[in-house]
Amino acid sequence: MNTAPFIAIEGPIGAGKTTLATMLSQKFGFPMINEIVEDNPYLDKFYDNIKEWSFQLEMFFLCHRYKQLEDTSDHFLKKGQPVIADYHIYKNVIFAERTLSPHQLEKYKKIYHLLTDDLPKPNFIIYIKASLPTLLHRIEKRGRPFEKKIETSYLEQLISDYEVAIKQLQEADPELTVLTVDGDSKDFVLNKSDFERIAAHVKELIV
Amino acid sequence: MNTAPFIAIEGPIGAGKTTLATMLSQKFGFPMINEIVEDNPYLDKFYDNIKEWSFQLEMFFLCHRYKQLEDTSDHFLKKGQPVIADYHIYKNVIFAERTLSPHQLEKYKKIYHLLTDDLPKPNFIIYIKASLPTLLHRIEKRGRPFEKKIETSYLEQLISDYEVAIKQLQEADPELTVLTVDGDSKDFVLNKSDFERIAAHVKELIV
Repeated sequence: MNTAPFIAIEGPIGAGKTTLATMLSQKFGFPMINEIVEDNPYLDKFYDNIKEWSFQLEMFFLCHRYKQLEDTSDHFLKKGQPVIADYHIYKNVIFAERTLSPHQLEKYKKIYHLLTDDLPKPNFIIYIKASLPTLLHRIEKRGRPFEKKIETSYLEQLISDYEVAIKQLQEADPELTVLTVDGDSKDFVLNKSDFERIAAHVKELIV
Repeated sequence: MNTAPFIAIEGPIGAGKTTLATMLSQKFGFPMINEIVEDNPYLDKFYDNIKEWSFQLEMFFLCHRYKQLEDTSDHFLKKGQPVIADYHIYKNVIFAERTLSPHQLEKYKKIYHLLTDDLPKPNFIIYIKASLPTLLHRIEKRGRPFEKKIETSYLEQLISDYEVAIKQLQEADPELTVLTVDGDSKDFVLNKSDFERIAAHVKELIV
């Protein structure tokens, strides 16, 4: 479906996805596709009452990212221009599985496939794998108001959900390349060599 | 699926749906289900660039109303409590047919049915049929900023779309009752008797 490198940085909340995507986007001059979080009008309602507002929250994110994926395909990928995204649209399913009722999740997954099956997906994922202490530290450091209400158990669950999801993505697409980065021992912000090692993998992809 | 009277007032923009629904809701003491328009974060973008933002606009309305329909069913209809709504969720399809590309419309209609087929629908529609001059006059009178950009041709198209849609709804549900009100010659706000005649139909429904 799509030959241009479509690189997605993924990992749980606080793993450093946007930071790494920004650094790589600047280094290679690739357009960056930013996950928009704050725009979701249901976010505050969701953190106050997850059961009541999760479906609307997830559907808003999905439709928003569906448009972003369509635009990314039209403006860049179809023209052979590699891009870097700080999320993979499949993350919507990861979160939806945690917040939606079985009945809602069934509808949601059908809608997910209806919207995205005919669109290009990332062909290279950089998966930042990090433990709970690292994530909690980074979330606190960036101080987003609506993230203050995140419960540790929710984050712990998300860590294991990502492990499952990355495997699912690999099984679903044998041609997908996944580079796993140890978010605990590696610091691509403070240690230049850690970042350069990741950048070298990206370079291999585009030559 | 649902026995409690579920009354929807429908008609093109400016027909007087919310006004009539409010008057009936107060007269009979039925809860009113209000179509939320202003909350849609895509509205201004849509009026600036219909093609670019129509899918997100329509999906937001649909998901918003899906929740409203779910809540209406859970909080009222399942308990035998009649309700009055100033819209029918099918109106989403009417507007989507006008604004979405064929490819998007195909996806949209599948999602519409996925979301709403297992939910109760109005069993009584009061359809306010009005001509272009009447609608333009009312739209100007209420002065909503985002409605200023509405083109006359768009409104003319909507008038004929509603004629088609009401027939489609009747064909799809033979048990559906439709009361057509002539919005040009009847004024349920200024003429008490015009309103009482409509109210009498509603009364028949609930005894």
